[in-house]
Amino acid sequence: MRTEESTGGRLPLSGVTVVDLTQVVAGPFATMTLADLGADVVKIEAVGRGDRSRSIQPVPEYFDTINRNKRSVTLNLKDERGQQVALDLLADADVFVESTKPGRIDRYGLDYETVREVNPDIVYCTITGFGTDSPYQDLPAWDMLIQGMSGIMSMTGEPDRTPLWSGLPSGDLIAGSYAVQSVLAALYARERGDIEGEWVEVPMFDAAVSWLTSRAGYTFGTDEPFPRHGTHHPSIAPFGLFDAVDGTVVVAAGTGSLWEALCAAVDRPDLAEDDRFATMDDRVENRTELLAALEPVFADYEVAELVARLREHDVPAGPIHDTASVWEDEHVRERNLRRTMEREGRPDAEVIDHPVHFTNLVTDLGTPPEELGESTDDVLSDLGYDPETVDDLRRDGVVD
Amino acid sequence: MRTEESTGGRLPLSGVTVVDLTQVVAGPFATMTLADLGADVVKIEAVGRGDRSRSIQPVPEYFDTINRNKRSVTLNLKDERGQQVALDLLADADVFVESTKPGRIDRYGLDYETVREVNPDIVYCTITGFGTDSPYQDLPAWDMLIQGMSGIMSMTGEPDRTPLWSGLPSGDLIAGSYAVQSVLAALYARERGDIEGEWVEVPMFDAAVSWLTSRAGYTFGTDEPFPRHGTHHPSIAPFGLFDAVDGTVVVAAGTGSLWEALCAAVDRPDLAEDDRFATMDDRVENRTELLAALEPVFADYEVAELVARLREHDVPAGPIHDTASVWEDEHVRERNLRRTMEREGRPDAEVIDHPVHFTNLVTDLGTPPEELGESTDDVLSDLGYDPETVDDLRRDGVVD
Repeated sequence: MRTEESTGGRLPLSGVTVVDLTQVVAGPFATMTLADLGADVVKIEAVGRGDRSRSIQPVPEYFDTINRNKRSVTLNLKDERGQQVALDLLADADVFVESTKPGRIDRYGLDYETVREVNPDIVYCTITGFGTDSPYQDLPAWDMLIQGMSGIMSMTGEPDRTPLWSGLPSGDLIAGSYAVQSVLAALYARERGDIEGEWVEVPMFDAAVSWLTSRAGYTFGTDEPFPRHGTHHPSIAPFGLFDAVDGTVVVAAGTGSLWEALCAAVDRPDLAEDDRFATMDDRVENRTELLAALEPVFADYEVAELVARLREHDVPAGPIHDTASVWEDEHVRERNLRRTMEREGRPDAEVIDHPVHFTNLVTDLGTPPEELGESTDDVLSDLGYDPETVDDLRRDGVVD
Repeated sequence: MRTEESTGGRLPLSGVTVVDLTQVVAGPFATMTLADLGADVVKIEAVGRGDRSRSIQPVPEYFDTINRNKRSVTLNLKDERGQQVALDLLADADVFVESTKPGRIDRYGLDYETVREVNPDIVYCTITGFGTDSPYQDLPAWDMLIQGMSGIMSMTGEPDRTPLWSGLPSGDLIAGSYAVQSVLAALYARERGDIEGEWVEVPMFDAAVSWLTSRAGYTFGTDEPFPRHGTHHPSIAPFGLFDAVDGTVVVAAGTGSLWEALCAAVDRPDLAEDDRFATMDDRVENRTELLAALEPVFADYEVAELVARLREHDVPAGPIHDTASVWEDEHVRERNLRRTMEREGRPDAEVIDHPVHFTNLVTDLGTPPEELGESTDDVLSDLGYDPETVDDLRRDGVVD
């Protein structure tokens, strides 16, 4: 959270304006990232209801984590006057990110062809579940479907049990990341004069499939599905999760010398001498015996002591943090990754810092997440709407 | 895989040169994405050994999935002449992406300050596990550690069982995505004249923590850790995984009308009338009974038929694909997401297409993954090294 003012550095997207017609996770995560990089984001929300994630529990913390530094304006896009306000915004914008259901953007009169007429330079980014030319174009863009259909769930779980939902909303966040990348790539090409404007589509499903990378490579090489991981690496041992007295530890002894160091760390040199565990191949082949030997040893330690001992012997190890304990982690505290943004008249918003460290450029969390429509009047005023017109629009439910 | 030649479109990063000193997953995924977008990537690999992932099974498929469209040059960076070749490359490059162990880049004489002297315009991106100013700076940047320490594992698994490794190598891929974003943001700022060059650091751990987003919001609002998901959504029902005769299905009936449609789809209107399941609150509260009622019904169907019936009734549903079956999916086949790249004298490389669809710009998978050092001679020749000098370097093990 180093700002232009505090450092003299420039925000990479300073002066770039983004109109945001997205909700829940994928789109808002993308536009939040663009905002961190310095873009001025105007978030269009439905009159009365707003982004659906404003009502996802816990309220408002769920919403807050992905909606800082955006100005909230409410618009009824079923009303032509609401559509006109949106077009007025888009006429001056550099970027439009939208994740409406397929077909809906046409009914709003905000499809690419229409927007391009008022702003041929715009970088127009559509996030969809499956894309408009997919057999699944009518399926909703829900993370659980994307995770299930892309192969992510099939790899998550214990080998002899059911596939599981991966903890992160990966389907959403992967698509959001590709949206950011694609917008940045198009802005760069535009700045170089290679294009006038651009329409780019990010299908969540395709995006998730592209992340299979080396996991797909396993299948390409073996014709077998990548197996569910469970808690241990398939071809390295010991490399996985172990229970300690008060929690779980991840231990990654990826080489022979690390194995010896591990045995020394827990005062069990006899294990390093054990023929069954002499080479990596031996340890993988005799994993059951290896785990049976190690588990009771580790189970006698508290997490902090076990991790400290292993690290003293240069064995990579760490605690398994949950989403509460991670904020107590020494690194996370020193980096100040959990941030508080003060809001007048409301409880502070808690957010996570942008993780990347520029040297000359800066990032900035900006302003706290806004209440629904908090900037409606300001944004319409900036567009040249006089207060009387805004009152009329409000009376007619076009804004609120 | 629409190329400049086939469409007349421009690659967003055409003319941008990237020097890549990364290996395994995070960095190579980043530089592959830059290559998809049109950058000319020169991948520096250790003499004799190369990228460690060249020997990760299955060989070469693991490596192939994240290393297309890069020219491979081998260099011994412990030798001053190897370092000079790298500096010569960097003197003309737009971007440097490196993920060497903390401290090593200084020993190679390729730290930012040195590189900046020969190329003040360079965008220099360092991917680390934890960053150079972390208490964990000596821990290796291994995905399993990052997943465990960031909170990702704690959310993955069944509620009453152990945390699990998430199926995707999320720690690696998240960092790779931030590297791409950050490089693009810096290139944009450079093109606008806001900066001369840039040094940006992407710590894998911080990057993973930043993805907790709404999961962290749960903790910020409740002071409780986000629970392990298991197979069903915590606050929507029925919304999760169900076993069918020949596999698993994800069913997402997120509203009252979808619940009624689901009951109709499987010919069980009586369930829609059941008072225990009347409202979403009822269905969540009586989830055990709900699942007990639905599971035997779904278990009688084959996956394909159950999905088809549910979709006919507009209930979002899909098969749980594994990394083998996903390539047989209708959408994946139609989009041609699994690609074959022909290699002379070697088996074809199989890769996954870039998932984003530009309209005016294009992306391009480019050339197939190269063998270790395949482009050493070409790259050194481009730098002006004459064949005799290259022979000398080869004889001395500086290149191979």
